[in-house]
Amino acid sequence: MSDKKIPYKIYLDEEEMPKSWYNLRADMKNKPAPLLNPATHQPMTKEELSAVFCEELVNQELDETTANFEIPEEIRNFYKMYRPSPLVRAYCLEEKLKTPAKIYYKFEGNNTSGSHKLNSAIAQAYYAKKQGLKGVTTETGAGQWGTALSMACSYFDLDCKVFMVKVSYEQKPFRREVMRTYGASVTPSPSEITEVGRKILAKYPGTTGSLGCAISEAVEVATHTEGYRYVLGSVLNQVLLHQSIIGLETKAALDKYGIKPDMIIGCAGGGSNLGGLIAPFMGEKLRGEADYDILAVEPESCPSFTRGTYAYDFCDTGMICPLAKMYTLGSGYIPAPTHAGGLRFHGMSSTLSQLYDDGLMRALAVPQTKVFEAAEQFARCEGILPAPESSHAIRAAIDEALRCKETGEEKTIVFGLTGTGYFDMYAYEKFHDGKMDDYVPTDEEIAASVAQLPKF
Amino acid sequence: MSDKKIPYKIYLDEEEMPKSWYNLRADMKNKPAPLLNPATHQPMTKEELSAVFCEELVNQELDETTANFEIPEEIRNFYKMYRPSPLVRAYCLEEKLKTPAKIYYKFEGNNTSGSHKLNSAIAQAYYAKKQGLKGVTTETGAGQWGTALSMACSYFDLDCKVFMVKVSYEQKPFRREVMRTYGASVTPSPSEITEVGRKILAKYPGTTGSLGCAISEAVEVATHTEGYRYVLGSVLNQVLLHQSIIGLETKAALDKYGIKPDMIIGCAGGGSNLGGLIAPFMGEKLRGEADYDILAVEPESCPSFTRGTYAYDFCDTGMICPLAKMYTLGSGYIPAPTHAGGLRFHGMSSTLSQLYDDGLMRALAVPQTKVFEAAEQFARCEGILPAPESSHAIRAAIDEALRCKETGEEKTIVFGLTGTGYFDMYAYEKFHDGKMDDYVPTDEEIAASVAQLPKF
Repeated sequence: MSDKKIPYKIYLDEEEMPKSWYNLRADMKNKPAPLLNPATHQPMTKEELSAVFCEELVNQELDETTANFEIPEEIRNFYKMYRPSPLVRAYCLEEKLKTPAKIYYKFEGNNTSGSHKLNSAIAQAYYAKKQGLKGVTTETGAGQWGTALSMACSYFDLDCKVFMVKVSYEQKPFRREVMRTYGASVTPSPSEITEVGRKILAKYPGTTGSLGCAISEAVEVATHTEGYRYVLGSVLNQVLLHQSIIGLETKAALDKYGIKPDMIIGCAGGGSNLGGLIAPFMGEKLRGEADYDILAVEPESCPSFTRGTYAYDFCDTGMICPLAKMYTLGSGYIPAPTHAGGLRFHGMSSTLSQLYDDGLMRALAVPQTKVFEAAEQFARCEGILPAPESSHAIRAAIDEALRCKETGEEKTIVFGLTGTGYFDMYAYEKFHDGKMDDYVPTDEEIAASVAQLPKF
Repeated sequence: MSDKKIPYKIYLDEEEMPKSWYNLRADMKNKPAPLLNPATHQPMTKEELSAVFCEELVNQELDETTANFEIPEEIRNFYKMYRPSPLVRAYCLEEKLKTPAKIYYKFEGNNTSGSHKLNSAIAQAYYAKKQGLKGVTTETGAGQWGTALSMACSYFDLDCKVFMVKVSYEQKPFRREVMRTYGASVTPSPSEITEVGRKILAKYPGTTGSLGCAISEAVEVATHTEGYRYVLGSVLNQVLLHQSIIGLETKAALDKYGIKPDMIIGCAGGGSNLGGLIAPFMGEKLRGEADYDILAVEPESCPSFTRGTYAYDFCDTGMICPLAKMYTLGSGYIPAPTHAGGLRFHGMSSTLSQLYDDGLMRALAVPQTKVFEAAEQFARCEGILPAPESSHAIRAAIDEALRCKETGEEKTIVFGLTGTGYFDMYAYEKFHDGKMDDYVPTDEEIAASVAQLPKF
């Protein structure tokens, strides 16, 4: 089909939208390693996990064989409010780069929460409501997940308690206000209202907090409050399952116009967007039906794939959560304070870690100022103001398109544009004013952090 | 056609998108009064206007007879990057209100600038580029127009100088950063770099500025700089012409499903969104082909339609711009400092003023806290975080839907959701904290301001 017939934005019709999520693990020969109980080092049982997570979500977490999970109608109805998200042909960017490559991006920022996080938030809120819970707890760093969850909880009339990393709480008061608009309560973490928070404050007075610490607090409150469970926006299998909607829509839109991508690029923090975007493509690759070059892009300041160790580690600072086998920098690793935006989790989804370890995908770490350069270039020609997280994928896509210019390859590149940067203008300001730097952790720093991995 | 078949969001296909703008004035029996030269009180000639505005735009400004202006291909291509905007059926809001009314909203916030302003910004930038200009100047208050124009100028490689009302410049640093991301220069107004700015600063030291003052500065720079012209985001006929894309798409989407609206609601500041949204509907009304209840909603703190005077007035504080006949509160009128968001211009589009004076539309002023209540209610069920401006229309739509609940009327209501509130969280915060008030100007205040109208 000729380029002329491909619209700027490919939208699926409502009846073309996916009716099931796709569980990548069903097609993996080497399954991801199970979560372990931190006390016994035995795989977490359904019962153990159900004390922390909603029951249906535990079923999804543990199910390695069911390939397709039907999306409940209530969730499909909510999806219709902001999905399908557009798959956009970056005609303007291509022209600016003078590249023979064809660039597409799946834009997930077209909803108020401003990112793809809503895809899993609404699912998790739905199952919590179905179980008759009163509310859920969670943590948020840059704020995308907390915003998405507060929207989702407001839709299902669930209480939502968010622990927000203190430095973000103070630097991003407007993120907090969006969550309040949706009726959530937001507590800066570490706080005095949890035991683990008080312990951390006693040990590190004046700490500005971390994701790992906020997770510990949220889990403590969920497990100590009647009618509450904890929900998490990344890393877990269930999250990747829900996020597969991104990839399924992308693939359906490409198929509609007979387009076969050569390369799929996604930014990678805990893996929620990347795992969702690549799911059906990786599925074909695992089943030997097609081949794709799949690239994870992470910040140089938090390089879990490219410089981490593949091992069991804690997911939180308080060490009360299950252990996960993953590429990790160590649960005590905190990116340099000059690191802007998200993608700051010390580890990586177990599923993606296994795929990476099996050589089924590549990874690349990029420096921060180059990311913001790409963000600005993209904004100026494609119009959308990208989130710093998403801009890691933009950076890699632009670099690949420039390589194609050298070689003359007419490669088709698809990347995930996970969200918008409206709440990241403080970072953009630093970039504009030339005050942004590119911190790269030393080998010694990473070694010291990795040395703290649990030993057994 | 049954409700079941109407999707949540109606998108037009690319080939269904309007190829022309519609010029409402062509169907008006009583044409809007012409702009007058402030010195001679004679209608502004094409030559006079061309010293301030781009030539093609002057043609559009003065043309009262051509009904349809073909949209140049370059602009249509840009529109394709973010248009058609969705027409959304507010199923969730209807359910929450338990109303028999059917509510639709045309959502114009789905582009990075976050509002409908981009529709005219890209057109004005295009004509400036076509004329071979180096750049344009403008003013911005809440920041939507400045953001849209900086995006548009970046697309066409035009320089963009924005004078931003000082109080907004200080309270909304992130708006400023978005404009810088798109390469615009942003100066707080009043500034020392213009003669009119220095005069105003000398007369009112410490002033936090106003739209009327920023307009004066932008016009001065445009008319004193080789290769520059001034552009304006509202009030003018040319702006309403470009914004007719909103109404044309809305009508096409409704027609596609055989839906006939009973009522069209738009928020009203200078009239850019309202004039665009209602254009084709008002056209049918003027031609006697159909009838619609058309409602303008304005803030109680800046009530130009409901409490203003229909007379010639200055558009700017420096009194260097042409005089326009409009509903006005007087060019010295400044809304109370507690007024949040936009819709703060002292006057109203001449075209809309004439239609209102002819009894072809109604107007309503609403108090600020009621507007934010509606905004929050809407956000919680429809997901989108609305701009304060847009929330005026939401307030009126909800009130009408509640009236329908009383009477049992199955009215079809369409309103314009002009933009998103990401940069208005400071106002939301005041609302959440119970610190927002409802200032209503006294009759004496308005009389004092109106007494300053030019006399001739």
